Amino acid sequence: MVGATLGSKLVQIGHEVKMGSRSANNEKAVEWAKNNGAHASYGTFADAAAFGEVVFNCTAGTVSLAALTLAGAGNIKGKVLVDVANPLDFSKGMPPTLSVCNSDSLGEQIQRAFPNVKVVKALNTMNCSVMVEPSLVPGEHDAFVCGNDPQAKAQAVEILKSFGWRSIIDLGDITAARGTEMLLPIWLRLWGLYQHNPFNFRIAR
Amino acid sequence: MVGATLGSKLVQIGHEVKMGSRSANNEKAVEWAKNNGAHASYGTFADAAAFGEVVFNCTAGTVSLAALTLAGAGNIKGKVLVDVANPLDFSKGMPPTLSVCNSDSLGEQIQRAFPNVKVVKALNTMNCSVMVEPSLVPGEHDAFVCGNDPQAKAQAVEILKSFGWRSIIDLGDITAARGTEMLLPIWLRLWGLYQHNPFNFRIAR
Repeated sequence: MVGATLGSKLVQIGHEVKMGSRSANNEKAVEWAKNNGAHASYGTFADAAAFGEVVFNCTAGTVSLAALTLAGAGNIKGKVLVDVANPLDFSKGMPPTLSVCNSDSLGEQIQRAFPNVKVVKALNTMNCSVMVEPSLVPGEHDAFVCGNDPQAKAQAVEILKSFGWRSIIDLGDITAARGTEMLLPIWLRLWGLYQHNPFNFRIAR
Repeated sequence: MVGATLGSKLVQIGHEVKMGSRSANNEKAVEWAKNNGAHASYGTFADAAAFGEVVFNCTAGTVSLAALTLAGAGNIKGKVLVDVANPLDFSKGMPPTLSVCNSDSLGEQIQRAFPNVKVVKALNTMNCSVMVEPSLVPGEHDAFVCGNDPQAKAQAVEILKSFGWRSIIDLGDITAARGTEMLLPIWLRLWGLYQHNPFNFRIAR
């Protein structure tokens, strides 16, 4: 759902998007491409990784490293990887816990596993409808970015601005992903509280 | 610092406050009481716990259970305990990690250790200057409360309102303390980013 939502928005604002999946002909990816016109296509994770100038990781956080391994280190080498995933572990029941947190994060795990990739953690702190349409939430609110490469972060910030984001807080290097991923437990509570109505974090300052 | 700040505010708005410490004559507690007039006093943790109708835990999170044990289960039995502490562990260097998180929290540990106490987790997500003077932060912003006892939460909410809080979000039972304590890693990043200027979380909705 996150990948389809981001992919559709990227197509709408003029990008070419290839949706990657484990199989070359994933049913949902085929359907997504059919509904999104000539600039939308699909293929394996490796196909999508090789195709993209910028790569979005929209997989479930607990399988992101496996999916990126299938994507292929060579196919993402030197590229900006926008990591939208959260390491939510539903295996122990509800509410989910984080499979990594506190002294490490998924963003850092990905950066360590793929040191030649420019990982930018972004957009993991809001519903995907809000990611691509920030005006759904009333008033001022914030997106966060972090990562080790300033140019990659600047590129991610430009993409976020093209989605409509006006306030984007740069939290520093990729270790700040601990902080944004650890927002998920309160996010899930709020999601229940507001009955799935759009909301987002704002840092009042 | 948190205890002194909260204590002074409580005295200012008409309460009697006894500051508890490990020793009966803690130098800082004596100094605090001297500076805060006739309604301010000091004593051991047990003295303070016995004295208070409502008890605030403003100790360092990693020693809160030890401090509350010194306070004495009998002295806090049946009372509202507002838990302001965060389980920040500085022993492994900077940034601190949380000594408990993800599938548990300090708030829950305290509630389990003292089942007859009505624990309300509150005010642990902002600087102590903001706790007692929310108008220091511009615009709308939020305080969070959680706990198992609705009446205890209502009492904590009244105290927060008397501090000037206008928006107080009830996150549900004490397990929501996981979410508010896990805000600390991003809070610490923002604290560095905003050069210690007042800020706070807002849930835009």
